[in-house]
Amino acid sequence: VSRDAALGVFDSGLGGLTVVRALREACPAEHIVYLGDNARVPYGTRSPATIVRYAQGCARALADRGVKAIVVACNTVSSVALEMLRAELDLPVSGVIAPGARAAAAVAGEAPVGVLGTAGTIASGAYRRALAALSSRTEIIGQAAPLLVSLAEEGWLDGDVPRLVVRRYLEPFFDASGAPRVGCVVLGCTHFPLFRELIAAELAARAGRPIPVVDSAVETARDIRAFLADRAMARDGATGRLDVLVTDMPRSFADVAGRFLGTPIEHVESIDL
Amino acid sequence: VSRDAALGVFDSGLGGLTVVRALREACPAEHIVYLGDNARVPYGTRSPATIVRYAQGCARALADRGVKAIVVACNTVSSVALEMLRAELDLPVSGVIAPGARAAAAVAGEAPVGVLGTAGTIASGAYRRALAALSSRTEIIGQAAPLLVSLAEEGWLDGDVPRLVVRRYLEPFFDASGAPRVGCVVLGCTHFPLFRELIAAELAARAGRPIPVVDSAVETARDIRAFLADRAMARDGATGRLDVLVTDMPRSFADVAGRFLGTPIEHVESIDL
Repeated sequence: VSRDAALGVFDSGLGGLTVVRALREACPAEHIVYLGDNARVPYGTRSPATIVRYAQGCARALADRGVKAIVVACNTVSSVALEMLRAELDLPVSGVIAPGARAAAAVAGEAPVGVLGTAGTIASGAYRRALAALSSRTEIIGQAAPLLVSLAEEGWLDGDVPRLVVRRYLEPFFDASGAPRVGCVVLGCTHFPLFRELIAAELAARAGRPIPVVDSAVETARDIRAFLADRAMARDGATGRLDVLVTDMPRSFADVAGRFLGTPIEHVESIDL
Repeated sequence: VSRDAALGVFDSGLGGLTVVRALREACPAEHIVYLGDNARVPYGTRSPATIVRYAQGCARALADRGVKAIVVACNTVSSVALEMLRAELDLPVSGVIAPGARAAAAVAGEAPVGVLGTAGTIASGAYRRALAALSSRTEIIGQAAPLLVSLAEEGWLDGDVPRLVVRRYLEPFFDASGAPRVGCVVLGCTHFPLFRELIAAELAARAGRPIPVVDSAVETARDIRAFLADRAMARDGATGRLDVLVTDMPRSFADVAGRFLGTPIEHVESIDL
């Protein structure tokens, strides 16, 4: 595969665009093909067998477009389908969980790691397993935060409602005396970088000092850059192209996508899987 | 078809169980087969062509089980697929929009009708068309309220967060001076009956007097009872059976379903469509 080939990135919908945003900052020369399987969003409430089947469809569609590597920009898929995708495809496949877990283990020190995710990601124990693979001592406190997904898609990013929701979801990260129980908090869902500052501010306000917030999207992009450099697969040259594919409703996808990507999307192509 | 045959009720997921709850109160002797197509939930963000295809699959599965009538307990499907289902199936098919619109037109008087729904239902103009068919004078003020769906599924039914969310969604129903602009508010999404009292309380607090809240689920059940009685299709006898079918994740469906149904569900059957 040529180093000029694109990176393929997929997610069940919009959220993975925060990973694309981080990738464009970390590796601006890379071409990117993004596939949002919004006809079947959300994956988080599906059974593992269904998620694996959907992920297969997405990954094949990207492989058919000649990408040089695939980034699974979805915590749910990363937690159940990476092995299968790696076994099936003759391409490097990266998820978003291991990079976030690695960064969290590095900053948390002796303290437990707090993880915010969808109900599915938390219940899957994926972060627990990823951290256990890195350290036998690191504990985890997981908190499902599904309303943050809805708030992100609705565009309610600040004001009383998101602040109260965030505050409530952060409660398990503090003990009865109000002291923090965690050494850092991982944003374990691709929607949550939209609330990174609010989460950091609420953590600091309650703890009386900053608590690091680990953004899986940023950590994943950093890992991809290092991986491409190591294997001499990085593209040189001018800013890369971004192609966006969706499986349903390209118009309304484009309307909301800009919030996740940080810049407006002009063209969205509709495909069938 | 025998009058002892069941009523078939379907929805994209959980929400339709509020219609089942109302049906069991209005017609306790009826057997009910409920199908929640939770493998493909939510329908609200799909294209009309996709929704029609999904609805077809659900309705056929119920028809294959020998139901005597089909209740489409989903505003999204009711707004785009009723005609197709009626054309295709040799069975009575009822939606949830016309009954709610009829009740709203009756109570709103000269004032506009406020409608809360998902973004898809509001954008589809379905309530506007249903009201236009009843009265040339009735205006409508629609407000998409997607966060109420997430709050219902998360079980955050009272407290600051739902109150602030409801308050914000009700804003367009009041003018700059704080006077109500609507004669009633229709709960145009099957999840919203879980917030009926909160919505009524917030409306009354802001208006200084009660504003009627129309529950589409209750109005639909009332219409079905009248329809069955008119056609001598109502079942007599002891309390009817409820069979619940889902297309994915029967266990987690059962966990949350009780909140919508008002009583726990013991058994959920998983089917493929």
